[in-house]
Amino acid sequence: MDKKRVLSGMQPSGRLHLGNLIGALSNWVKLQESYNCFYFVADWHALTTGYNNPSAIKDSTIDLLVNFISAGLDPEKSTIFIQSMVPNHAELHILLSMITPVGWLERVPTYKEKIQEIQDKDINSYGFLGYPVLQTADIIIYRAHYVPVGVDQVPHLEISREISRRFNHLYKEVFPEPEALLTEFPKVLGVDGRKMSKSYDNAIYLSDSPVIVDNKIKTMMTDPARVKRKDPGNPEVCPAYQLHKFFSNSQELSEISEGCKIALIGCIDCKKILIKNVSDRLTPLWEKRSQLLQKEGLLMDIARVGSEKAQKFTAETMNLVKDAMGLSL
Amino acid sequence: MDKKRVLSGMQPSGRLHLGNLIGALSNWVKLQESYNCFYFVADWHALTTGYNNPSAIKDSTIDLLVNFISAGLDPEKSTIFIQSMVPNHAELHILLSMITPVGWLERVPTYKEKIQEIQDKDINSYGFLGYPVLQTADIIIYRAHYVPVGVDQVPHLEISREISRRFNHLYKEVFPEPEALLTEFPKVLGVDGRKMSKSYDNAIYLSDSPVIVDNKIKTMMTDPARVKRKDPGNPEVCPAYQLHKFFSNSQELSEISEGCKIALIGCIDCKKILIKNVSDRLTPLWEKRSQLLQKEGLLMDIARVGSEKAQKFTAETMNLVKDAMGLSL
Repeated sequence: MDKKRVLSGMQPSGRLHLGNLIGALSNWVKLQESYNCFYFVADWHALTTGYNNPSAIKDSTIDLLVNFISAGLDPEKSTIFIQSMVPNHAELHILLSMITPVGWLERVPTYKEKIQEIQDKDINSYGFLGYPVLQTADIIIYRAHYVPVGVDQVPHLEISREISRRFNHLYKEVFPEPEALLTEFPKVLGVDGRKMSKSYDNAIYLSDSPVIVDNKIKTMMTDPARVKRKDPGNPEVCPAYQLHKFFSNSQELSEISEGCKIALIGCIDCKKILIKNVSDRLTPLWEKRSQLLQKEGLLMDIARVGSEKAQKFTAETMNLVKDAMGLSL
Repeated sequence: MDKKRVLSGMQPSGRLHLGNLIGALSNWVKLQESYNCFYFVADWHALTTGYNNPSAIKDSTIDLLVNFISAGLDPEKSTIFIQSMVPNHAELHILLSMITPVGWLERVPTYKEKIQEIQDKDINSYGFLGYPVLQTADIIIYRAHYVPVGVDQVPHLEISREISRRFNHLYKEVFPEPEALLTEFPKVLGVDGRKMSKSYDNAIYLSDSPVIVDNKIKTMMTDPARVKRKDPGNPEVCPAYQLHKFFSNSQELSEISEGCKIALIGCIDCKKILIKNVSDRLTPLWEKRSQLLQKEGLLMDIARVGSEKAQKFTAETMNLVKDAMGLSL
């Protein structure tokens, strides 16, 4: 039996960090085994908020691709592509725009929120209003069955389901209604103890060199109450310990936790273990990254081959769409 | 020196009639001699108001193409294509949508008018709101210098000029600001004396057979005050005489006008001349039409070759656009 199809994408709007790896990317790597996955760099979407600085989008696109591949997305297993290299998305977007009431878009909760939230950028564009239409085209052009999302993002998928239903109802059953594939996105803390985020400048990036990762962890915040080596600490309020949870094994975790509480282990030694474990986890990524960046054109070859594969698959969908609408000549 | 480029299109939303021939199509044929012309069937645009009946769009698309060619548009001189067969339009549309403020679209005078005017159809879609963005993409993707429009349509071009300016200003000078090529659209009357229009069911269609044209003219309205053959008539209020103005030469016109006023010529004889002259004008169209419809695939070959030519030209523009935006990888 054919595997069910999964689609997911990321906007190229900055470098990826450990939080993205633990949350989305590791999950994507796992999904490759059970599904027919389509993963993409959503560069057109990045224009909705970044239209006045597209060269940053270009840099981030390359960073994303490097991270996709070095984190373990396998071009043999999954279709990995760049949105702007698959123009069929734009064509389906036009057709869907004709059957999507403006009111549906104006009522998307995130629309008004974002308009109010983002004050430093002019985002009140036609394309920003139509973000969910493009997103729907991205999903259903692969006739995707599932979209991996966190529980708080399930409502975002609803408009894509509504647009698919409307198309199927007006013309012919072409699209499965895409369902949420619920994914846990654990909260990963940054070096200052707040949520790891590029906007807080507290992130450990996948593109950071081993030396930088080493330094960031060495200087990262710990339990503020543990001032001296002999003070007992509280691992549950220590950001470093929170990172341990994702990178260290259960035996290490319990030794560190117990040792910290009775001041048997100091922060420096605790961090040495963390540095080693983060390093172990990232070493294959670093190696792969360096291979990708050394071989001129290798990365673009991967993007091109994947995008051609995507264009071919979506051409089939577009034929079904045009037949359903009676537009084929 | 390179010829300046002209772009124009028609929506496939019904059959073409004499009014369309006299107004737009004959002018397009003339422009071929002085400009590098791009003429297209705007089938995506027809979806803005006709999304729930796309098979009618398909039929009209074929009718339009037949009329384009049989009226004298020459695929050797002009690029004749179908919008949906040139997907680069959709791609530029996405990019322009990111730099077009929603407010500009909401303020387009025809937008609110149409929303209020068209009550029998649900047109309040995202695509309908974005009609001017797609129209702009259609025009500027050919880096067109001129768009032939009637004087009342000049304001419609203004938003395309604004969007081009905004692109050139944000990124790099890629697009000439398209200018109106003022065209006279004379008022052609239908068989009932009102303006010839498919919605009044008073039109003589280019696809009507000679017998039907003959019948429509024979039964068309004349000066209502001229009841009997011996009553003198007033050519200026006679719809048949108005048609003469487009199809008969000046000698015929003065003879008919004078003869009518003193009841020297009757309506039947007057119409015989009109039928002959309309027939003479339409005969080459009828012949070409029958050739086109007889040779299976000929019409689609023309559309395909023209659309490939258009896709090739627009690919150059898209490269300029992506370079200007710094999006090329």
